[in-house]
Amino acid sequence: MRSLSNIYFDEENNLIRIGSKKSQRQYMNLAHTRKFMQTLLVASECKKIIEQGVTTSIRDLYYALKHTIKGTHENTFNGQEESDPVLEDLESALNLLREELHLKADRKGYMAGPMIIEDTGDRINCAKMGSSGWAIPSDVEPEMIKFVENRAKYALLIEKDAVWQRLNEDKFWKKENCLIITGKGQPARGCRRLINRINKELGIPVYVLADADPWGYYIYSVIKQGSINLSFLSDRLGTPSAKFIGLTVKDVTDYGISSNVTIKLNKGDQKRLKEMLNYVWFKPKPWQQELKRMLKAGYKLELEALSSKGIKFITEKYLIDKIRKRDFLP
Amino acid sequence: MRSLSNIYFDEENNLIRIGSKKSQRQYMNLAHTRKFMQTLLVASECKKIIEQGVTTSIRDLYYALKHTIKGTHENTFNGQEESDPVLEDLESALNLLREELHLKADRKGYMAGPMIIEDTGDRINCAKMGSSGWAIPSDVEPEMIKFVENRAKYALLIEKDAVWQRLNEDKFWKKENCLIITGKGQPARGCRRLINRINKELGIPVYVLADADPWGYYIYSVIKQGSINLSFLSDRLGTPSAKFIGLTVKDVTDYGISSNVTIKLNKGDQKRLKEMLNYVWFKPKPWQQELKRMLKAGYKLELEALSSKGIKFITEKYLIDKIRKRDFLP
Repeated sequence: MRSLSNIYFDEENNLIRIGSKKSQRQYMNLAHTRKFMQTLLVASECKKIIEQGVTTSIRDLYYALKHTIKGTHENTFNGQEESDPVLEDLESALNLLREELHLKADRKGYMAGPMIIEDTGDRINCAKMGSSGWAIPSDVEPEMIKFVENRAKYALLIEKDAVWQRLNEDKFWKKENCLIITGKGQPARGCRRLINRINKELGIPVYVLADADPWGYYIYSVIKQGSINLSFLSDRLGTPSAKFIGLTVKDVTDYGISSNVTIKLNKGDQKRLKEMLNYVWFKPKPWQQELKRMLKAGYKLELEALSSKGIKFITEKYLIDKIRKRDFLP
Repeated sequence: MRSLSNIYFDEENNLIRIGSKKSQRQYMNLAHTRKFMQTLLVASECKKIIEQGVTTSIRDLYYALKHTIKGTHENTFNGQEESDPVLEDLESALNLLREELHLKADRKGYMAGPMIIEDTGDRINCAKMGSSGWAIPSDVEPEMIKFVENRAKYALLIEKDAVWQRLNEDKFWKKENCLIITGKGQPARGCRRLINRINKELGIPVYVLADADPWGYYIYSVIKQGSINLSFLSDRLGTPSAKFIGLTVKDVTDYGISSNVTIKLNKGDQKRLKEMLNYVWFKPKPWQQELKRMLKAGYKLELEALSSKGIKFITEKYLIDKIRKRDFLP
């Protein structure tokens, strides 16, 4: 069961988890018949594409399965909002990622750094990708993406692509021997899974660089302990040892950032911060202090605000300083 | 002047153009003083970053320039919505792309195919990019991106990334010796400029594959003749010789696509189609027929609808057929 009542925070492993409650879907129960049929349709289409050795998108899956049932006016699916949850049921029941069922999620995000990967036979050197970086695909399972060579000492996940581009242009990853990754906002599943694999399989520590605002903190929390929606995949999508490098409200005084470039909290921000104070995963003292400090200061801060100290301030001073001092939030 | 009154359609070259009307911005005119100051600030920051040999984003530019003017309570800029139009004024007045002023726009989109490019010293083989493709950067000017080697006979711009991934997985670009490019929806400036360069500098014909709906047709029209917003850049962003490969309403009968996977037009679609009938650039007869046919049929169609004929139908039948027959809209 993927409902909220079956989700809990595993404090030992620092992951949002799904519990053990199960439900049954029966063909002979009229309330279940339609869902039962849809579940079988999705499962059999997955079997078909796996056997054909092809992959497809969840939208194509919906179109491939949509038809009017012979002799009736009933459609198998009336919209993609009917096929998507059935797929999540299957992922959860089978404990498989949709990528393993040969279905692709939306992809975004880029990576650069001293690592060579292999993707379906092609070797890609992430240190030779010019201004673009390597585009992170949807499916980064070990069968698709192999880590061939790695010299990175840590991985930096950056919320914003513009900031990633600054770091790439300054060859920050070369100077620091690290990986720089951006999820372009909330990272897609492929990006989260990649970070999980880099951390788990290669033992590379992960640091997160995001805006000092409720959304930036939320992005961090999803990287670290997974999300409620995909709680059944936390083992593969979460990275519990990740640390938050910044921005923080404390940075404003520590680095003398002008109040001109801070942004006043709106009502939504204040409400969200108060909610976050009660989340188990924000209970560690340094986070409680940070959230309260933001509420008291009454402002938030974007990564680009560091540009008011000079365009290269973030790469030449801020990040180096924070990493040397290990000035992280847990 | 970038206002609508100074924009026209150049029928000879098939491009949306900016006219010759100009306006002045004077320091001593109180109504202009603030904008005058902002224009100089943006121009001088561009000069600075060009001299430093760095690039930055338009958001960082705003943050770098935002401050309270000494001895007053006046901010140089109150929001990015004040600095962005000033930058467009500069682009238009200087006839330069923002990328040439060392400013980066948002980037998205991917390319694969038999082409080797060089980006800031790195050679990237677009035929060896695994499942990702080469990520198209914001700045694809000749100084940044060089076409080192090309064996492609045509370029296919695909509206949707999921469809691009289908084509990439089937190695369509290898079989057909073509480039496959996706803009992930409405292509960003970098993607439009890349297509323009590929067509203009290498003489490669460009075909557009989009949904059969007003939005898909609009994406095509922007690729072909530029946009009203960026009319001053049409020469560099438009590709007047581009052709529309599909989808069309006619495809539904030509390829026996089931009515199950068509989508009923809503009021907004109908209104938009009627507007489009009056646009100069949709005046060619085949487009008038297509737009009227859609209005009459009362439905639109997504690329993924082709999956109802089989997952590889698009690569093995539909596209090959259309290209062999040169069954394009102008």
